[in-house]
Amino acid sequence: MTQSSLSPEVLLRQSLASEEEEEEEDYFDYFYDEPGSEPGTLSIEPDAQPSKIVLIDYSQDHAVRKSDLTPNALRPYLGTNTVSWMDIQGLGSEEVLKQVGEIFKLHPLLLEDIVNVPQRAKIEDYNDHIMLIAHRVRPNREEDGFESEQVSFVLGKRYLLTFQEGELSDCFDPVRDRIRSNQGKVCQEGADYLVYLLLDMLIDEYFPLLEDYEERIESLEDTIIRNPSSQLMEEIYNIRRELLALRRLIWPLRHVMNVLLRDTNSLISSDARIYFRDCYDHIIQVLDIIEAYRELASSLMEVYMTSMSNKMNEVMKFLTVISTIFIPLTFIAGVYGMNFEYMPELKSRWGYAGTWGVMLAIAGGSLIFFWRRGWLQPSYSIKDD
Amino acid sequence: MTQSSLSPEVLLRQSLASEEEEEEEDYFDYFYDEPGSEPGTLSIEPDAQPSKIVLIDYSQDHAVRKSDLTPNALRPYLGTNTVSWMDIQGLGSEEVLKQVGEIFKLHPLLLEDIVNVPQRAKIEDYNDHIMLIAHRVRPNREEDGFESEQVSFVLGKRYLLTFQEGELSDCFDPVRDRIRSNQGKVCQEGADYLVYLLLDMLIDEYFPLLEDYEERIESLEDTIIRNPSSQLMEEIYNIRRELLALRRLIWPLRHVMNVLLRDTNSLISSDARIYFRDCYDHIIQVLDIIEAYRELASSLMEVYMTSMSNKMNEVMKFLTVISTIFIPLTFIAGVYGMNFEYMPELKSRWGYAGTWGVMLAIAGGSLIFFWRRGWLQPSYSIKDD
Amino acid sequence: MTQSSLSPEVLLRQSLASEEEEEEEDYFDYFYDEPGSEPGTLSIEPDAQPSKIVLIDYSQDHAVRKSDLTPNALRPYLGTNTVSWMDIQGLGSEEVLKQVGEIFKLHPLLLEDIVNVPQRAKIEDYNDHIMLIAHRVRPNREEDGFESEQVSFVLGKRYLLTFQEGELSDCFDPVRDRIRSNQGKVCQEGADYLVYLLLDMLIDEYFPLLEDYEERIESLEDTIIRNPSSQLMEEIYNIRRELLALRRLIWPLRHVMNVLLRDTNSLISSDARIYFRDCYDHIIQVLDIIEAYRELASSLMEVYMTSMSNKMNEVMKFLTVISTIFIPLTFIAGVYGMNFEYMPELKSRWGYAGTWGVMLAIAGGSLIFFWRRGWLQPSYSIKDD
Amino acid sequence: MTQSSLSPEVLLRQSLASEEEEEEEDYFDYFYDEPGSEPGTLSIEPDAQPSKIVLIDYSQDHAVRKSDLTPNALRPYLGTNTVSWMDIQGLGSEEVLKQVGEIFKLHPLLLEDIVNVPQRAKIEDYNDHIMLIAHRVRPNREEDGFESEQVSFVLGKRYLLTFQEGELSDCFDPVRDRIRSNQGKVCQEGADYLVYLLLDMLIDEYFPLLEDYEERIESLEDTIIRNPSSQLMEEIYNIRRELLALRRLIWPLRHVMNVLLRDTNSLISSDARIYFRDCYDHIIQVLDIIEAYRELASSLMEVYMTSMSNKMNEVMKFLTVISTIFIPLTFIAGVYGMNFEYMPELKSRWGYAGTWGVMLAIAGGSLIFFWRRGWLQPSYSIKDD
Amino acid sequence: MTQSSLSPEVLLRQSLASEEEEEEEDYFDYFYDEPGSEPGTLSIEPDAQPSKIVLIDYSQDHAVRKSDLTPNALRPYLGTNTVSWMDIQGLGSEEVLKQVGEIFKLHPLLLEDIVNVPQRAKIEDYNDHIMLIAHRVRPNREEDGFESEQVSFVLGKRYLLTFQEGELSDCFDPVRDRIRSNQGKVCQEGADYLVYLLLDMLIDEYFPLLEDYEERIESLEDTIIRNPSSQLMEEIYNIRRELLALRRLIWPLRHVMNVLLRDTNSLISSDARIYFRDCYDHIIQVLDIIEAYRELASSLMEVYMTSMSNKMNEVMKFLTVISTIFIPLTFIAGVYGMNFEYMPELKSRWGYAGTWGVMLAIAGGSLIFFWRRGWLQPSYSIKDD
Repeated sequence: MTQSSLSPEVLLRQSLASEEEEEEEDYFDYFYDEPGSEPGTLSIEPDAQPSKIVLIDYSQDHAVRKSDLTPNALRPYLGTNTVSWMDIQGLGSEEVLKQVGEIFKLHPLLLEDIVNVPQRAKIEDYNDHIMLIAHRVRPNREEDGFESEQVSFVLGKRYLLTFQEGELSDCFDPVRDRIRSNQGKVCQEGADYLVYLLLDMLIDEYFPLLEDYEERIESLEDTIIRNPSSQLMEEIYNIRRELLALRRLIWPLRHVMNVLLRDTNSLISSDARIYFRDCYDHIIQVLDIIEAYRELASSLMEVYMTSMSNKMNEVMKFLTVISTIFIPLTFIAGVYGMNFEYMPELKSRWGYAGTWGVMLAIAGGSLIFFWRRGWLQPSYSIKDD
Repeated sequence: MTQSSLSPEVLLRQSLASEEEEEEEDYFDYFYDEPGSEPGTLSIEPDAQPSKIVLIDYSQDHAVRKSDLTPNALRPYLGTNTVSWMDIQGLGSEEVLKQVGEIFKLHPLLLEDIVNVPQRAKIEDYNDHIMLIAHRVRPNREEDGFESEQVSFVLGKRYLLTFQEGELSDCFDPVRDRIRSNQGKVCQEGADYLVYLLLDMLIDEYFPLLEDYEERIESLEDTIIRNPSSQLMEEIYNIRRELLALRRLIWPLRHVMNVLLRDTNSLISSDARIYFRDCYDHIIQVLDIIEAYRELASSLMEVYMTSMSNKMNEVMKFLTVISTIFIPLTFIAGVYGMNFEYMPELKSRWGYAGTWGVMLAIAGGSLIFFWRRGWLQPSYSIKDD
Repeated sequence: MTQSSLSPEVLLRQSLASEEEEEEEDYFDYFYDEPGSEPGTLSIEPDAQPSKIVLIDYSQDHAVRKSDLTPNALRPYLGTNTVSWMDIQGLGSEEVLKQVGEIFKLHPLLLEDIVNVPQRAKIEDYNDHIMLIAHRVRPNREEDGFESEQVSFVLGKRYLLTFQEGELSDCFDPVRDRIRSNQGKVCQEGADYLVYLLLDMLIDEYFPLLEDYEERIESLEDTIIRNPSSQLMEEIYNIRRELLALRRLIWPLRHVMNVLLRDTNSLISSDARIYFRDCYDHIIQVLDIIEAYRELASSLMEVYMTSMSNKMNEVMKFLTVISTIFIPLTFIAGVYGMNFEYMPELKSRWGYAGTWGVMLAIAGGSLIFFWRRGWLQPSYSIKDD
Repeated sequence: MTQSSLSPEVLLRQSLASEEEEEEEDYFDYFYDEPGSEPGTLSIEPDAQPSKIVLIDYSQDHAVRKSDLTPNALRPYLGTNTVSWMDIQGLGSEEVLKQVGEIFKLHPLLLEDIVNVPQRAKIEDYNDHIMLIAHRVRPNREEDGFESEQVSFVLGKRYLLTFQEGELSDCFDPVRDRIRSNQGKVCQEGADYLVYLLLDMLIDEYFPLLEDYEERIESLEDTIIRNPSSQLMEEIYNIRRELLALRRLIWPLRHVMNVLLRDTNSLISSDARIYFRDCYDHIIQVLDIIEAYRELASSLMEVYMTSMSNKMNEVMKFLTVISTIFIPLTFIAGVYGMNFEYMPELKSRWGYAGTWGVMLAIAGGSLIFFWRRGWLQPSYSIKDD
Repeated sequence: MTQSSLSPEVLLRQSLASEEEEEEEDYFDYFYDEPGSEPGTLSIEPDAQPSKIVLIDYSQDHAVRKSDLTPNALRPYLGTNTVSWMDIQGLGSEEVLKQVGEIFKLHPLLLEDIVNVPQRAKIEDYNDHIMLIAHRVRPNREEDGFESEQVSFVLGKRYLLTFQEGELSDCFDPVRDRIRSNQGKVCQEGADYLVYLLLDMLIDEYFPLLEDYEERIESLEDTIIRNPSSQLMEEIYNIRRELLALRRLIWPLRHVMNVLLRDTNSLISSDARIYFRDCYDHIIQVLDIIEAYRELASSLMEVYMTSMSNKMNEVMKFLTVISTIFIPLTFIAGVYGMNFEYMPELKSRWGYAGTWGVMLAIAGGSLIFFWRRGWLQPSYSIKDD
């Protein structure tokens, strides 16, 4: 079949389908190097956002925000006593990223993990800085499901580098506002507290998404027993798939937080550890809910299968009732349709009426039999309507 | 469809349904902050009970109970040699809660965990006080299922703060009575023993609830094999769901007790640890029973599916028996209903009787055939009524 | 429906059913305190056996047996150089149990665990004595399944207290006989060896019970493929239930033995530890067999379901064969039963015979078609008899 | 039913069946003492092989083989500088076994574990000797499945005792030949290397057996999708059962090797540990394969069930196609078989032909409808042949 | 059946089938010694590739490549200050392999593990060298599935030995090119960095293979709900099988990397450990994806089964609808086909028309009934087309 012979409608549908597929692919992808390539190679995706740098420099009594900086403009903020937060938005400008790597003396493998997304959540301790990779999620706008994006942190002495893919809207603005208006504790604390604030925001974004899943599961619960259509089956499968993907995003983060809590690197103060403990609790809660939903979705699949069986049983019972009532009657009618010359009943004045009587008796007897076996009341009749 | 055009009956049903849904939601919820909000923010639910404070101050030879106190009235009881138990019932008064937090120097995150319910059960050691979060359960009054409520403990030096949501009736009254009438060991012991007493009461409330589940499972066992209706399937699903929710409440408490037993904080005396060991045993027993019931419920689902299959088999066998007996007979009757001019049998004197003979022989032969294959005895006939 | 209007037969069946239910309940019960009751309360069940005390006092060269003693008569045997084994049979006499508790200085929680049965198997070290809880099992006499009973040990310096519920026959007589006739090593060893001997007897009682399950599973294996009746399904469910219950009894005992082997309490000599290692091995073997049987029972359920499917397939094939053969023939007969005036075949001399010929050809063709598809040989015909 | 009234054929089948059952029992048995018997009692099975002793005494430059020795003849070989390997074949002679126990000062529980077979694989360190229990397997000669036998090792200072049940042919001959012809490293090494050699042989015997299972699974894979007969289901169940049994034999051996590798007993030289590491690798490989096959067998069961469903679907589709084509036609024929006086079509010249036309059109339409729905091509037609 | 009587086509199919089987066998094989053979025996497979040796000797400023060397030609490169990488391609020349073993003083068991392929991935530390076994994979060229090959490393002081089976094309060429053109860091680093580079290449080869599986699973997802044919079932089974096999290859490598990271052997510098950490991350990612795909494939099997059920339900509903409509009509036609003399309706002028009226009313009523029950809309109609 040549593509050109297809109608525009079909082509549209195909392109939509392939787009959807691409969306689905995302859930289970990891970045991997071309086998045989040199380790530490940055591979910039062609459709990646160009990199912008937003800087916030603050201490207890001041806060400065500068945007659209060049990497070299960051140099003066190294080694000062104020906390400097450099947020790199978009991973599309190789030159910028490399310069940042040089300025902050980042290991080539570290930079590779930040740029070649997506990576698994992880933490790595390079003595004078700590790298941490986590993921944001956001409900998908057009359809069910979610979008995710890697966020990377490099925490050094009195500075913090963050890297966002930039596909989803910038989620760190509320924190920036809080710093500039000197709200809350953030300006009294160091860069480690800032990491906590940002991580906590990331993780809090999982909860509304999970609530979406709760609603989807609940609406399935309500309809699946009464009306097990194959759309529902597809929906259950998709929920399981997406929860599996979600779990893969957050699961390694638990280990990351554990390392952060137990680590002895002096970049994390013991005061901040109390806050990270809170973060850890939230991750556990997210995982806990995901596991519960996965179990529910898996139970729902069983309920669906059983519900199908129920329905089939109803159909079979209906067929059997109809057949059992009429088959003997048709047989009797057939008998008196025979053309034998000697059939005394045919001549009888009451033959026809008597035959009707026998047939009604058989039909009535069958109905009573079925009624007593309970085949006439469908098992879910009350709710079926 | 506009809501107003609906009949009152439908509206009632919808409101019941939405109420039920809300009930169901509770099982798998955790409190989460609005993403981007400042950590440590207390969020008071609009329908939360206003906070009341009940104080019991006791030592070996006296016991005083005061209720409806203001937070400031608690100050004199700090630093005394008597044990002071302040019970805050209801989490609806932000001012009261904040004042309590200030008086007892509670960390903002600690207060947040207590107020923003529900949280996962946990224990956190803040050196001069220990926070512990657990959950009460109570069978749901109107329908199957259960209600749960968070109970938080803050154990300090010779004082104990407890926080109840206040939706369920106060469960600590028997302990208060025991203190005031100086029954049992409680007045001879410190605040740590009081924590044990209260925790033990919480956990003992799980057992009658589990007995309800045992009864529900047993009544399912009895009916499921004979009469696998779809209500039963829904019931199994609900039981699994609720046991899953119950397990999530109590599971982290096991870890909490473990920490309590191994911890070296001097607020827990080694005498009290013997008692907490008892508490730990009860938690293990609850978990053990829940796991067993979950396995039984899951086996029941399989039994249900098989039972459905059995039923369908019966139906099919019935249809097959009826069809197989009458289809050949109807064919024979059809043959002699043909209008061919030359059909010698039709003229025969014994044609009609002979045809009946053949038909009865076929029917009888079929019956014998089915009887020998065992299709005439339904497999569960003995018990089927 | 009022109970009084029921026939005696129905009433009998109901009472049997309720008895059976009570039996079933036992498998998954734990004792629990009324929520709010004082810890350490003994709760004597009304139908508990009155407590009898049987004492055996022995050393390397003598052995004395006294029965029906009062608790106070045990005092002289404390602190002697001989080994004193006090066996309390029946937990129905609160006064006796309390006195024993006082004489041997047992912690209230310890006594509660012993008296308020059933508890989970456990070991607790109270420095000058060790408490150990285990369970006996015995095949149920009247029906399938088993009965269990808690046996508690308190091992002190040169004395051993054992507590039996007394519902099952006393199982310790062989050991008593061996002591009195000075057979085996028991008289040369201390009270720790006696604990080993008694525990070993308890565990050895699991093996014959497991052999019963092996036989039940094997008899199922043989019949389930050929004749999957719903009784078999019930039997599989019961086996799974009972194995689950059995596992719950013995599983925590593994941990108990582990503690016993690693513990450093001087009440257990290092010589005795070699023997306890043997005990531990036997517990592992019991658990190992239970797990294997559980897996087999779960496979059997799948085999059952598949077997049902097989049967249904047979039924459907049979119906299809019969229908497919006769439906076209009946159609042909119907055609020539039509009353059109112009139907040339009807006048033909060979019309009738020719029609028979066509019908036989169709029937034969169908049979050949089905035979080649293999539908005429039931898949389990060879074994079906 | 009296046994004597049965035909010889039936009797033969019964005896075969009972034999088969006995075979099956073996897989999940452990030896257990009669409850209440004295620990350390040897229980000789009546059909056990009488014990023969084969001795090989070797050093770097000599090797002597003596067979059919009495236990006392072993005494001179204790305490020499040569390595003495005493192989006791058959566990039927209580006297011989007891004498061996005395000569080598074996603990009664050790001797019990060796004689009362089968036991779980284990290792026990008695300071001056180490006991190790393992199991040989061999494909069953007459039918599918396998036979197993316990082999026990007691490794002392410069001597090795091995105990074989003797039911399977002696598997140690190749090693004996190698020692006597001074091939390989064995004569330069101590008794620990000999243990390695023998254990390695035992474990290598598992691989050909596993290859049998691979073949059985593969032949199932090929036939199960096309032709899911109930024999296949039985075969899958048996494979799962036997793999479960096989896993139980080898699983504890992993722990045994682990202990051997980590143990500090000087009877195992550090050189030998390199070899035992190799042994451990092989055990892991065996377990690894068993687990993979168990997963495959369990997938196959699902494939089987689905395949059954497929088949049933085919049958149902066939029945539906046939019924749907002929039921309307038969109805039309019935209509014109009615005897109404006023039926204008009957008089028409083209009535009969027209009716045929309508009927053919309906049949053709149905066929087209079914063909477009894909019901006329069985889903597995291409391969079905 | 004699082979010779078969048609060429059948023979071809058989040979293809057997070839395919052989391919399948590979997935779950391990090499095992003939039971009873001497440990350390090299067993050369008859179809193994002859061994070629390719040497690269490099330091920071030079790089030499020599191929087709004899083992003895390697001697001069031992003990030099340059890094020497000897790559042995093909395991078919016993003499060559043995000489290499002698020159590098490899333990016989080490050489056995390298030559007797396939072995499980493992690492073994022989003090002056470390052996490491891993596996390459490559998508199968002719059909779905993959091919794998063992690659063994022996890392010594400033030299590296690698052994490839040689069946798959040499995968190390890109590294050789990089060394010779002095690209990247490789020439500045030692032999440990070279091990990292090669291992990283091996592991990177898993990702494109996994992408193939992702595509296969996705294409299944799309078709399985609409059209559950038995080919799809076979495909799901094969995917599960191959993912299981893939997991078995890579799973032990995780442990290997763990040992490498924690090991204290001085052959691995602490700089290189940072790189191995990267390698470890990639292995975890591969395992993570495999597990996710395994779960998806297992969900797909459930979806397939449910989809089959759905289809059967559709078929049954169709049959029931057709039967229910026509069976009563045929009965009515049968009634008026009876030959009773007294049947007043037959004489009536409007009898025939009235009968048609009744029949149409019944058919219409049935259709309305079915339409309201939703049986006339197939549940997947919208997408079915």
